[in-house]
Amino acid sequence: MAYPEPIERLVREFEKLPGIGERTAERLAFWIVSHPAEEALRLAGALREVKEKIRLCSVCCTVSLEDPCGICASANRDRGTICVVEETRDLARIEATASFRGVYHVLHGRLAPLDGVGPNDLTIGRLLARARAGVQEIILATNPTVEGDATAQYIATRLSEIPGVPHRVTRLARGIPAGSTMEYASRTTISDALLGRRDISSQKR
Amino acid sequence: MAYPEPIERLVREFEKLPGIGERTAERLAFWIVSHPAEEALRLAGALREVKEKIRLCSVCCTVSLEDPCGICASANRDRGTICVVEETRDLARIEATASFRGVYHVLHGRLAPLDGVGPNDLTIGRLLARARAGVQEIILATNPTVEGDATAQYIATRLSEIPGVPHRVTRLARGIPAGSTMEYASRTTISDALLGRRDISSQKR
Repeated sequence: MAYPEPIERLVREFEKLPGIGERTAERLAFWIVSHPAEEALRLAGALREVKEKIRLCSVCCTVSLEDPCGICASANRDRGTICVVEETRDLARIEATASFRGVYHVLHGRLAPLDGVGPNDLTIGRLLARARAGVQEIILATNPTVEGDATAQYIATRLSEIPGVPHRVTRLARGIPAGSTMEYASRTTISDALLGRRDISSQKR
Repeated sequence: MAYPEPIERLVREFEKLPGIGERTAERLAFWIVSHPAEEALRLAGALREVKEKIRLCSVCCTVSLEDPCGICASANRDRGTICVVEETRDLARIEATASFRGVYHVLHGRLAPLDGVGPNDLTIGRLLARARAGVQEIILATNPTVEGDATAQYIATRLSEIPGVPHRVTRLARGIPAGSTMEYASRTTISDALLGRRDISSQKR
């Protein structure tokens, strides 16, 4: 027996969300059925509101209520340093550390040829335009994964082709995460940590 | 940095769904942000529609577009046999086997004192009313879990207190699932299978 059509439809819509399989979608749909209407309407309202109010900053491409976004509009940020991240949530994690005073550029993904994601599907063109306008440093903070590394490499190459604008291009340090132990680090992580080792007797940074 | 308020709100709404943690809620919210508005509006519409159109059958308490539901209204179903299930999805799974011609009763949960779910939070009262009106058999098809078993036991006791209405109360067979092997069966499952063993030389039905 199929469920009544509105439930089937809700299950199908939930199933479209990333990481939600058929059983989970069914569980979510029945949770909605068995909870007060206000719960469902609040979620429905939040979905509409996000699509109505959220836009992308025309400078850094992050999600924002205003254009330009609060960071790009701020007088306290260093526009000479651009930190390039894959997603807005990565931007939020860096902001949470309060240890970066530059500005950002959100790619909205990473190069993934096997999934059909090429340079034109990301905001790389806009980043190159910003770089051409002149910056001191571009920090490539894509994830230390195969795809994140390939994306960083691609961008670094394109940046090196910009004539007459000297700028530094850097990549986030990779190594053993703070609070973790060698025991749980992968071989690649340990290898990265060795390659990136630093003097501690004469540490300058 | 917090995300813009509409995104934060959507994350919080997603987080309320069962089995959705903070990271997953964030991932879902950004999926919504980065996909066409129609996707979000379709999900929002499906949520509203479910709450507007779906009701509970006043006989068996299953979710339905009509009252009574298609099964309770059908002339082809045996109203003398009631199969009691925890959730509507269990009803759907039994219907999918096409091996039951009786009617159902959906409890909408199971007794779970630790979670504050008592008999009055389920539809047990309505089931007892149906039993008092006269039935031949009540199949307790709650799950073979501690809570499902306790719920079945509670209902069986309450049914036995109904004076003057003889009826059979049964429980689904428990044992090794078809297509599985002893190797993967738990001790309880094997113990259940031994207790419920059947003659195969003189098998009748």
